[in-house]
Amino acid sequence: MTKASIITIGDELLIGQVIDTNSAWIAQQMNKIGIKIIRRIAVGDDWDEIWTALDEESTHADIVFITGGLGPTADDITKPLLCKYFDGKMIINKHALENVTTLFEKVFNRPITERNLKQAEVPDTCEVLVNTRGTAPGMWFEKNGKIFISMPGVPTEMKGLMEDKVIPTLIKKITLPYITHRTLVTFGIGESMLADLLEEFETKLPNQIKLAYLPNFGMVRLRLSVIENNQEEAKELIDRLFSELSIIVKEFLVIMEDAPMEKALASLLIQKKQTVCTAESCTGGYISHILTSIPGSSVYFKGSVIAYSNESKVNLLGVHKETINQNGAVSEAVVKEMVKGAIEKFGTDYAIAVSGIMGPDGGTIEKPVGTVWIAVGNRKKIFTTELKVRFDRQKNIQVTAVNALNTLRIFIQNEL
Amino acid sequence: MTKASIITIGDELLIGQVIDTNSAWIAQQMNKIGIKIIRRIAVGDDWDEIWTALDEESTHADIVFITGGLGPTADDITKPLLCKYFDGKMIINKHALENVTTLFEKVFNRPITERNLKQAEVPDTCEVLVNTRGTAPGMWFEKNGKIFISMPGVPTEMKGLMEDKVIPTLIKKITLPYITHRTLVTFGIGESMLADLLEEFETKLPNQIKLAYLPNFGMVRLRLSVIENNQEEAKELIDRLFSELSIIVKEFLVIMEDAPMEKALASLLIQKKQTVCTAESCTGGYISHILTSIPGSSVYFKGSVIAYSNESKVNLLGVHKETINQNGAVSEAVVKEMVKGAIEKFGTDYAIAVSGIMGPDGGTIEKPVGTVWIAVGNRKKIFTTELKVRFDRQKNIQVTAVNALNTLRIFIQNEL
Repeated sequence: MTKASIITIGDELLIGQVIDTNSAWIAQQMNKIGIKIIRRIAVGDDWDEIWTALDEESTHADIVFITGGLGPTADDITKPLLCKYFDGKMIINKHALENVTTLFEKVFNRPITERNLKQAEVPDTCEVLVNTRGTAPGMWFEKNGKIFISMPGVPTEMKGLMEDKVIPTLIKKITLPYITHRTLVTFGIGESMLADLLEEFETKLPNQIKLAYLPNFGMVRLRLSVIENNQEEAKELIDRLFSELSIIVKEFLVIMEDAPMEKALASLLIQKKQTVCTAESCTGGYISHILTSIPGSSVYFKGSVIAYSNESKVNLLGVHKETINQNGAVSEAVVKEMVKGAIEKFGTDYAIAVSGIMGPDGGTIEKPVGTVWIAVGNRKKIFTTELKVRFDRQKNIQVTAVNALNTLRIFIQNEL
Repeated sequence: MTKASIITIGDELLIGQVIDTNSAWIAQQMNKIGIKIIRRIAVGDDWDEIWTALDEESTHADIVFITGGLGPTADDITKPLLCKYFDGKMIINKHALENVTTLFEKVFNRPITERNLKQAEVPDTCEVLVNTRGTAPGMWFEKNGKIFISMPGVPTEMKGLMEDKVIPTLIKKITLPYITHRTLVTFGIGESMLADLLEEFETKLPNQIKLAYLPNFGMVRLRLSVIENNQEEAKELIDRLFSELSIIVKEFLVIMEDAPMEKALASLLIQKKQTVCTAESCTGGYISHILTSIPGSSVYFKGSVIAYSNESKVNLLGVHKETINQNGAVSEAVVKEMVKGAIEKFGTDYAIAVSGIMGPDGGTIEKPVGTVWIAVGNRKKIFTTELKVRFDRQKNIQVTAVNALNTLRIFIQNEL
């Protein structure tokens, strides 16, 4: 199987100023076409470190992806290094120059500088991959039977180059095996309990099949993977095992694909041709945000009221002042009224309401940080549940959102 | 300077199923105490790959952080490997066992399984770091003068171990230099133009100072770094240069720290003791979400209406039906009325409104995907601006949010 390694370049990666999302995306794409990523490595804008990484990764892998370090500023040293590493000399590339000029004239509407023009310079030992989304061209090198592909670190530019140029070329050049994964999502059961439940299933798995447990926000994703040269056989095998797996974990099954909770709820709403809105306090719009991250969500999602203050709960959702005074804003009674008010205002079939204390401050002895009330319902019925979350603010918001979405998902499923 | 390397373990990292946020966090913490991360590497749940990574990284670095691969399931092979790598044998650790038992009895309220109890087993050649947030203990090994620290991959557990055990121990054990970074954020100027503006400044920078450009969502962050043994001198030097830098880029300066746009707006609102709300269509609650990501945001943020449908724009924000019919929902006239309606409903000093088409579908010839109208204002005055975004849905939402927040920031600043 063809092995690849990813080198990401930039001091910002090593002081933790940016999170590397490029590697994950490249890995996903390679995984789809049957190239195995065996290592991912990040190094700084440092000549020796980059040089060593190129040496080392090309002994481990057949293909080395390189992202970053190609910007127009002085801290970007990757291009001169690649020029030397691949025994070339710098020349102006006509296509890259045309691209830079066009971008500045037609898209950016900014005057072009000397610095930008220099971005059209490339080592004469590479094949240029013109980057229509930015000024730094991609570069394809080959040395001692290994392929090295250098791309800018800006995610949209890297993705564009991969999709337009790199992936099609790799598919043409390399004989690839059949590799596939099937993932399902469970909720409400821990990793160890799942492993016990699946012990028999796991023991009898054939060699070419791998099962992985991926816990996240109270969900555990189960992933079956197969690598085979015979596509027909592999496909049949993994389909059968995936179906077996889904039956064993039926009670905890959220969705039969690698999708987030909002996708599971969205599928259900689309299937039922029904709509939802949210009334959020502590999650501050996060539930609304993840529901609308899905393209086409306007079909089932109508809107939200983010009622961060007590007055807005009263004025926008019709929560009674006395309900808040008697129970506090974080209470079963208030989230119930929030559901009613939201359905009323948005005219949806269902609503989700949450109110809680996400921390780090705002807790009391009676209602400590992490106390959350969730209500979901329709015009006829409202279901409530209390949650205790115990992470940092960001994760408390995320876990609350996943729980709230899941609560409505089960509410709707129980109606079916 | 002490050098460290981070190894993250898990097949999910190499097929791109999860994004590695642990490395960035560890890097930030090390950076603060003066330990230089020189490499970050991800490998799969594969015996040989992990073994090689331990060998290689310990030749590069003095300290090797290892995260992941310690779960209770069969795909986690890191612990037995570490046992062999450090010539140990597995023994039950009393403190780890106590911890697992307590967690199941007091926190999870679930029956404990054989598999969980096994998590208290550790190689007898390590020092155990008890993990009160989870069942897998951390392990500290030393070999040939190098330190190896193995921690679970669950971010909250890893962070807890780092803060409670690892960082204090490192500070005690190692003589550390003074390392510091000062970052400011600019908006509205490209990386190349900035580099031209800063050419003179950059040329005369002393050797121990580094300047980096970090573009993100239309902002460019500028980071000055210094590594020095003399803390007093380093501090004075970087303070002076940082101040010089801020004067050169004054026109484009957002905030004098490494903070997101919402933080810059929040600071301004807190300073003025004023409040804001949002009326969002295309951003679906994302602006509200990032504003409320900041602890204590209820001081200046009162709430939002996410008006994803036309009816909700009319019913909840008092936008006139005719305004929508005549101009369409994505129009200057509509966002103006959204600002007015939001201020009315939430009783805030300011409001931000956005309406646009985030894609991939929903565009027309007149209003293609990426068309966005932004309005910001107070009771007296409303400012509007049109934006064209040209990325994928997710990034379009993020870029729109940053622009909308910046528009209000400038609006308020111009009032001062």
